[in-house]
Amino acid sequence: MLSVENYRNEFISFLKEKTSTKEPINLYAPITYILGLGGKRLRPVLTLLTTELFGSDHKEALNAALAIEIFHNFSLVHDDIMDDAPLRRGQPTVHAKWDVNTGILSGDAMLITAYQLFEHYEGLTFKALAELFSKTALEVCEGQQYDIDFELRDDVTLPEYLKMIEYKTAVLVGAAMKMGGIIAKASKEEQDQIYEFGKNLGVAFQLQDDYLDAFGNPKNFGKQIGGDIIENKKTILFLTAMDHGNEMQKGELRDLYSIDPKDPSDKINATKDIFLATGAVEHTNTQIANYTQRAFEVLDSLEITEDKKELLRNFGEGLMRREV
Amino acid sequence: MLSVENYRNEFISFLKEKTSTKEPINLYAPITYILGLGGKRLRPVLTLLTTELFGSDHKEALNAALAIEIFHNFSLVHDDIMDDAPLRRGQPTVHAKWDVNTGILSGDAMLITAYQLFEHYEGLTFKALAELFSKTALEVCEGQQYDIDFELRDDVTLPEYLKMIEYKTAVLVGAAMKMGGIIAKASKEEQDQIYEFGKNLGVAFQLQDDYLDAFGNPKNFGKQIGGDIIENKKTILFLTAMDHGNEMQKGELRDLYSIDPKDPSDKINATKDIFLATGAVEHTNTQIANYTQRAFEVLDSLEITEDKKELLRNFGEGLMRREV
Repeated sequence: MLSVENYRNEFISFLKEKTSTKEPINLYAPITYILGLGGKRLRPVLTLLTTELFGSDHKEALNAALAIEIFHNFSLVHDDIMDDAPLRRGQPTVHAKWDVNTGILSGDAMLITAYQLFEHYEGLTFKALAELFSKTALEVCEGQQYDIDFELRDDVTLPEYLKMIEYKTAVLVGAAMKMGGIIAKASKEEQDQIYEFGKNLGVAFQLQDDYLDAFGNPKNFGKQIGGDIIENKKTILFLTAMDHGNEMQKGELRDLYSIDPKDPSDKINATKDIFLATGAVEHTNTQIANYTQRAFEVLDSLEITEDKKELLRNFGEGLMRREV
Repeated sequence: MLSVENYRNEFISFLKEKTSTKEPINLYAPITYILGLGGKRLRPVLTLLTTELFGSDHKEALNAALAIEIFHNFSLVHDDIMDDAPLRRGQPTVHAKWDVNTGILSGDAMLITAYQLFEHYEGLTFKALAELFSKTALEVCEGQQYDIDFELRDDVTLPEYLKMIEYKTAVLVGAAMKMGGIIAKASKEEQDQIYEFGKNLGVAFQLQDDYLDAFGNPKNFGKQIGGDIIENKKTILFLTAMDHGNEMQKGELRDLYSIDPKDPSDKINATKDIFLATGAVEHTNTQIANYTQRAFEVLDSLEITEDKKELLRNFGEGLMRREV
């Protein structure tokens, strides 16, 4: 087994080798651009790592890992259009640098290209990978739709929110790992277990994102602290505060989420105070710990060597200790 | 073999049976809507018909036929956003009835759903269908990109234009038929031949669309006669007129394609006069006949019974005699 850093570097080399800007340039240049913007490359690294975990060479998984990364970036390109987001990883989004039509069409081409990468695998593996990919991709679309729907609803429940982030974010982490299991021909049971591990870790990761957005260290977080609060996003912090708060706290929070001040500092601080006072912060951290714990329990039941479990545990703990 | 009308009716029943509006409603309702708007159902009918042609039951091809139809409608939903089109088949487009974001996301879900329909086929057939589908879908995206690029270019050549319509329109007709060949386990050679038949017929069909847009019978054509001229579209008629016209005709045509009069009747009539005087109309009809002829020649070399060839020939001739 290599280190996570090694897998990442190898994946990045492979990605660079495989992404060339073909004709028509206006279709393929945005794809090269978005794939070159960087990011943690978390999902493809997990595919490579899982393949080795189940005893195959991670090089066999490079095409599937690239499919996962291209799909992830496809969803970012289309989501950024829907959110009208000007920046992604500190650089202009595709639709901002080119235009909306380019973002739509290049995104479509990315989704198709992801499927094509599975063609490197023989019949049954191809089918297993493509089936998992389609199921996951459709869930990601459903998650995005729920996210859009929730913006207009005032009665979103915490279970609904958890389902939304499971679909929008976590299933792709689970699928990235399960693909490693499929390529390494792990048993169906092992494949399902590693999927559960990835999915639970994915939910924990997203919940932690909600937490860090409000309470992260501004030096490390990279994004503006309080971005979700400025945009009145119904994160786990908000939903839990509305669940657990008294009438006064709930009223105040509703008021804070209805204003759009020029200088948002006071709004952010007041909202964070309510998140703390209602116990929403504590409850969120408990949920993060629960999902992480659930992932680690699945790990225990996996029949792989102890040092491999240790590697996954360290990886998970590293993610959960992150400040970015 | 059934009649084209029978295949169409059976396909429509299957489509209705398979398209139910699941949760989240806002993702799936637009899909049910666009698939229910009608249309000629040309591509799925060709898939069913080709399957029988090569000796298998057309019922085996219903899922592949639906995948082709869903993909076709996916491309309409995204293209209509890009073209800012308010109407499709006389009804509001998806982004007009809902909004652009809904059009993007529902379209994405349609593309994925199309892939899922191939899961009904076993390993090797699944792989052959998905590979053909991905290759074709990517070409359709490339064709759409060339179409967009050509709008801003003044030096588009006729061969470039023919390649664009081949990608944007014709390859999907070829693929619809080849899928029938794959499902019926026809030989690779037969699969390639029926693909060529469909592709050439597809090009002829699109060129005829260009012709009918200017010279069709307004009573039958359904769309406004001269729509392409109003929008200054560089169709085969325009490109050939610019190739074959004298300096005066070319200058006049350039001028006509630079104006946007409130009442377009004079512009349309003057442009049609140039199309006729330069021989562009005659040349276009020759091209249509050539592509149709090429399709029929492929047919001759196919080893299927004479009555089946007759059926395909009648189908092709019917398409080419159409006034709509």
